[in-house]
Amino acid sequence: MICDTQHPHTGGSLHCAIVTLQGVLVIFASKKMATRVIRRIPVDILRIRGRPLSTSSTLRRLPKLASRSSRTARVAPLSFFVGGGVIASYLTLSQLNDPEIEDRHAETSSPPDDRDPSLPRFRLADIRKHDGSSSEPWVIYQDKVYDITEWVAAHPGGDVILRAAGGSIEPYWDIFSIHKAPHVREVLQQYLIGYIDVADLGADGRPTAESIEDPFINDPARDPRLITHTLKPRNAEPPNEELDRSFHTPNELFYVRHHMWVPFVEEGRVDQYALTIELPDGETKQYTLAELKERFPTQRVTAVLQCSGNRRNDMTRHAGKTNGLQWGVGAISNAEWEGVRLSDVLADAGLQTANTAPLHVQFTGLEAYGASIPLSKAVDPASDVLLAFGMNGKPLPRDHGFPLRAVVPGNVAARSVKWLSKIVVSDEESTSQWQRRDYKSFGPNEGPNPNWDRAPSIQEMPVTSAITGVWVGDCVRQGRVPWMGNSNNSLASNPSSASKIIDMAAVPNQRIGFTPKDSNSSTPCPTSTPANEPIALQGYAYSGGGRAITRVDVSLDGGLTWDQAELVKDCSSPSTPCYGSKSWSWTRWRYTGALPILSLPSSSAPSLPVAVKEDCEEGIFPRKEQQKRCTTLIVKATDEAYNTQPESHKGIYNVRGNLATAWHRVKICPKCTSGEGGVEGKGVTWNTGETYGCGFRKEAEEVREEMLRK
Amino acid sequence: MICDTQHPHTGGSLHCAIVTLQGVLVIFASKKMATRVIRRIPVDILRIRGRPLSTSSTLRRLPKLASRSSRTARVAPLSFFVGGGVIASYLTLSQLNDPEIEDRHAETSSPPDDRDPSLPRFRLADIRKHDGSSSEPWVIYQDKVYDITEWVAAHPGGDVILRAAGGSIEPYWDIFSIHKAPHVREVLQQYLIGYIDVADLGADGRPTAESIEDPFINDPARDPRLITHTLKPRNAEPPNEELDRSFHTPNELFYVRHHMWVPFVEEGRVDQYALTIELPDGETKQYTLAELKERFPTQRVTAVLQCSGNRRNDMTRHAGKTNGLQWGVGAISNAEWEGVRLSDVLADAGLQTANTAPLHVQFTGLEAYGASIPLSKAVDPASDVLLAFGMNGKPLPRDHGFPLRAVVPGNVAARSVKWLSKIVVSDEESTSQWQRRDYKSFGPNEGPNPNWDRAPSIQEMPVTSAITGVWVGDCVRQGRVPWMGNSNNSLASNPSSASKIIDMAAVPNQRIGFTPKDSNSSTPCPTSTPANEPIALQGYAYSGGGRAITRVDVSLDGGLTWDQAELVKDCSSPSTPCYGSKSWSWTRWRYTGALPILSLPSSSAPSLPVAVKEDCEEGIFPRKEQQKRCTTLIVKATDEAYNTQPESHKGIYNVRGNLATAWHRVKICPKCTSGEGGVEGKGVTWNTGETYGCGFRKEAEEVREEMLRK
Repeated sequence: MICDTQHPHTGGSLHCAIVTLQGVLVIFASKKMATRVIRRIPVDILRIRGRPLSTSSTLRRLPKLASRSSRTARVAPLSFFVGGGVIASYLTLSQLNDPEIEDRHAETSSPPDDRDPSLPRFRLADIRKHDGSSSEPWVIYQDKVYDITEWVAAHPGGDVILRAAGGSIEPYWDIFSIHKAPHVREVLQQYLIGYIDVADLGADGRPTAESIEDPFINDPARDPRLITHTLKPRNAEPPNEELDRSFHTPNELFYVRHHMWVPFVEEGRVDQYALTIELPDGETKQYTLAELKERFPTQRVTAVLQCSGNRRNDMTRHAGKTNGLQWGVGAISNAEWEGVRLSDVLADAGLQTANTAPLHVQFTGLEAYGASIPLSKAVDPASDVLLAFGMNGKPLPRDHGFPLRAVVPGNVAARSVKWLSKIVVSDEESTSQWQRRDYKSFGPNEGPNPNWDRAPSIQEMPVTSAITGVWVGDCVRQGRVPWMGNSNNSLASNPSSASKIIDMAAVPNQRIGFTPKDSNSSTPCPTSTPANEPIALQGYAYSGGGRAITRVDVSLDGGLTWDQAELVKDCSSPSTPCYGSKSWSWTRWRYTGALPILSLPSSSAPSLPVAVKEDCEEGIFPRKEQQKRCTTLIVKATDEAYNTQPESHKGIYNVRGNLATAWHRVKICPKCTSGEGGVEGKGVTWNTGETYGCGFRKEAEEVREEMLRK
Repeated sequence: MICDTQHPHTGGSLHCAIVTLQGVLVIFASKKMATRVIRRIPVDILRIRGRPLSTSSTLRRLPKLASRSSRTARVAPLSFFVGGGVIASYLTLSQLNDPEIEDRHAETSSPPDDRDPSLPRFRLADIRKHDGSSSEPWVIYQDKVYDITEWVAAHPGGDVILRAAGGSIEPYWDIFSIHKAPHVREVLQQYLIGYIDVADLGADGRPTAESIEDPFINDPARDPRLITHTLKPRNAEPPNEELDRSFHTPNELFYVRHHMWVPFVEEGRVDQYALTIELPDGETKQYTLAELKERFPTQRVTAVLQCSGNRRNDMTRHAGKTNGLQWGVGAISNAEWEGVRLSDVLADAGLQTANTAPLHVQFTGLEAYGASIPLSKAVDPASDVLLAFGMNGKPLPRDHGFPLRAVVPGNVAARSVKWLSKIVVSDEESTSQWQRRDYKSFGPNEGPNPNWDRAPSIQEMPVTSAITGVWVGDCVRQGRVPWMGNSNNSLASNPSSASKIIDMAAVPNQRIGFTPKDSNSSTPCPTSTPANEPIALQGYAYSGGGRAITRVDVSLDGGLTWDQAELVKDCSSPSTPCYGSKSWSWTRWRYTGALPILSLPSSSAPSLPVAVKEDCEEGIFPRKEQQKRCTTLIVKATDEAYNTQPESHKGIYNVRGNLATAWHRVKICPKCTSGEGGVEGKGVTWNTGETYGCGFRKEAEEVREEMLRK
């Protein structure tokens, strides 16, 4: 019942949660992310008061917390109960108790209060008492105070609304943006009871930013190499050069796709976490994590998880505006998962699979996200659906579902619900707003589509691929391609691939009419790139449903000619065995070839003129023209059912930008550099209008921060 | 042991076979197809002589047959033993015993015999004694005679060679064209023993056509509506208007894909047919058809069979020359199959499925064709692999595998081996030359591909679709679309589809500047087609692996805009329930819409000038241009894994023309008719450069007779 007050390393304060587990009160401590304001508010030992709690599928009022210290930090334990699984999400409402903050407020002159004088004014400190544990939960919207006690039972989203109680509803509406509609404000208006006291308002007539709680305060720290699309909730992908450098994406670089905050379950108390399973007849059964591990055999499955929005950025650039996070090619990662088979657990829970009705298995996470899969997939041992607690030989990280997540190999990752708290076998699909991620339309000028609702949810994923690394010219000659010449890798050890590796001795080092590393800046640029300019490409290919990738084709000339890439035999390498009944992993591929001859601008201007873009048509089968200024690299994959990728994003365009699986195109253009301060020295270097290039680092600014369904 | 001598209806002769079944001699009688010469040769009662036979996986020499009649017709019982399954294929060698034929030979003057005088001459009548039942089998090639006794055991194709014994090898080499190579003739040269006597040679120094046996003599009669690609072996597809008129393709119109002749098993003796199963340990087990039916539960599975070459004709027209039968869109059909589960039979035969090695189930047909599927597919009850003896409620027709065939739903039809005689569970794929049907290359200018051998065999099929019916303008207004306005069909009974059916009252009957049915031929043509010109389309969509079709998209303007077609709910209709664990059937679709306005030639010339073709670009996303002269209709389908079809055949081009699954395009062009003798009367009618049009009858001459691997 006592929490530490200081983080041993950061000196940051620690927050505590009160939660219930089968009628027993438990306190979890949270290592709070250090932030500017919060850092100055130490949290003392917390005292529990009030009546004991029992578990339930509905939220119970939690007793209020009070500090035993005089320098109080009130912590709102906005606990959330899903079935028998319990968790506490922490919202720090303590900042205003910091004297410094209150002093600052005192210094600013309050605006005149011309609001309805018939309604009372409330101080934020008093509003905070009406938190999720209160019998009279209140919320703030703008400068108004609402008593939502009567509304909670009717709220379509359920008890999640209580997370906002005692504070502002606005950060939650930023997440659940469906609320940003007039009819929602009309509902809220019915519960208006007063206004925030002007003493707690800033110059703009609203509570200060510091006084608004941050639902993401307990999110874990992330690897700085991740390219972040949104901070809250965090959505981030690994940089391409890290994405598939190894067969298993390292845990800290595995792409992060969150709809909300990261629920907090303390590692030391994880054995008190429980999963609830509800069968069609209403019977429920609970399993602690320890029980799951003891009762069922541990299974390992090597599987990709991929967001339906992977490569959405591509669709936007090639076909038109799409709604949603503008993912690059990194909303996909591969890992070795460890857990127990869902089919084993469901059988143990008493599920009768003889039922022939088309049932669904609904997963619900601790943060309220949910999604479902067909029961036929769940109960088929060959589907390898796991309740996973391990990832790449380590415990599941918090960002990836600690302590337990579903892993549904071969399906869209939206089904692999993290922080799993409840499983319901039902005759309905999950009603989560994330359940349906359908194609809305094909073709940019298509109007509203009457068939939207009839489109099935995405489960199994179609075949896709991407180029994640490009090396050109000197990059190849100078041995900067990690897998070239490395006899230890699985590609080089494949004798049949030897012929595909460029013979470096045969690559001319003297460019036509141009001397590399020439310090004389008056030397004219060559008129074209040299013949046999070497290029090396790498990337991944993947298909859903456990269908193996059987071939990857590469074009260096925009689709005019094709050649097959080498498939890296990761699964047959002793160091990276693949677990599972089917081909759930990605297939990495490698390719080396020679670029077509391209023309260079006559001047030695270091930057390529924009007009050149028009010269670099991206037609699917451009006419064979000598001396184009740019060329388009393309990759496409084929799976064992001989399904292959669509040629263009226009052909599969949908306004949600889902399943952007068209051939992956990377346009590259040569340029003539003066050698001033450049790593490349003077000579022909390469860049692209798509921020790919030699060494292939995707630039972070290209990754736009756009949220789904704005 | 006695055969009838006359067919009761045709008066044609009957041939008999001697075969063995578990050591017992059985005679099968064959109703021979009446042909010009053979009709005049009655076959008398046959007498068996020689030693008794035992079954074996190698061919046993059969005792010779002799006629008890003085007017002898020798019948070569080129029996073929595959495991315990037995069958006789009939080759009529009797023609030369017909006195009329011999008389005709006598009338022609024999050419001078300037061949090697050191070798003997043989009469055909004597050569025929060295048939498949002889201990010294001989064959003829051109005018030479070979004793192949020593060669049989070494022959890579096995005992099949004995089918040719006693006669010419040439008709078999026409089927097994791999033999048309110098090294094969070198092998044969070793066994030369002499020449055909000049008395049996025609003016060209070769045996007359009549004296060469026809391996296809016992093929069944076929429905004349079938469009025939090759006669021997028969390869034929139903006309489009029949293909998917009903959900189940009628047996007599189901497409026919044969590699060889149709083996003959007499219906009355079918209970003596037996299937042999050989397990990995070499153990064998045999089942008669009666045993299969008695011992295992009968299952029904509704499933498509589709040739890997379906729509090859499309690939040829749009991407370049391909080798193989130039199938239209009809190398696919749908039927309800009845049989027993392969998984049940394999389990009964004692197969241990715990073996984790990647085993294969090899099927061999009575005519020597073979193909295999992975064991994992064979033993999974959800894969619904059948040993089928019924088709659409009737016994399996001879053309479709009577008495027993494999049906492997969701896979390429090449795996659904007909006339099934033997099943071998092995660690190897079938070595049949038809096993590998890989993409050879992508891109028309790709050279020989070193990865050919590494490409996996086609098993599961990718998603495809086709337009099988088009009605335009008056065809729609005049109610010639069978499914429009028919309240009994499953489409019209779907309320949501009502809005998609064109409101006929709203369709203008008066064309702009043009009076339909005007008898005044000087009336000028309109300059363009009317607005809202109605069009109706129908077709099918299908994906392998049991993946349901979830949407079908149609474009009427070459891909510029798209709309969804209605999916016909056949499987939910009480009259056409679908059997099986997954979606193995095709999905029929229907669409109505309005065509874009197109320009018409200024003259009223009835035929469209060829130059118009150039005006009708088939680019995937043509620029939006008003007043094009033609438009391209497109259909594409998406399956439940959201795999969709490639846009162009160029993108999946392979020289074998396999898996031609690109968007199906049908270009249509309006023309102005004078009304002279035309059914349409005077007005705007439609035709296409691809022989589709109003009413959509594919013209037979378009279907070229080309054989695979010429």
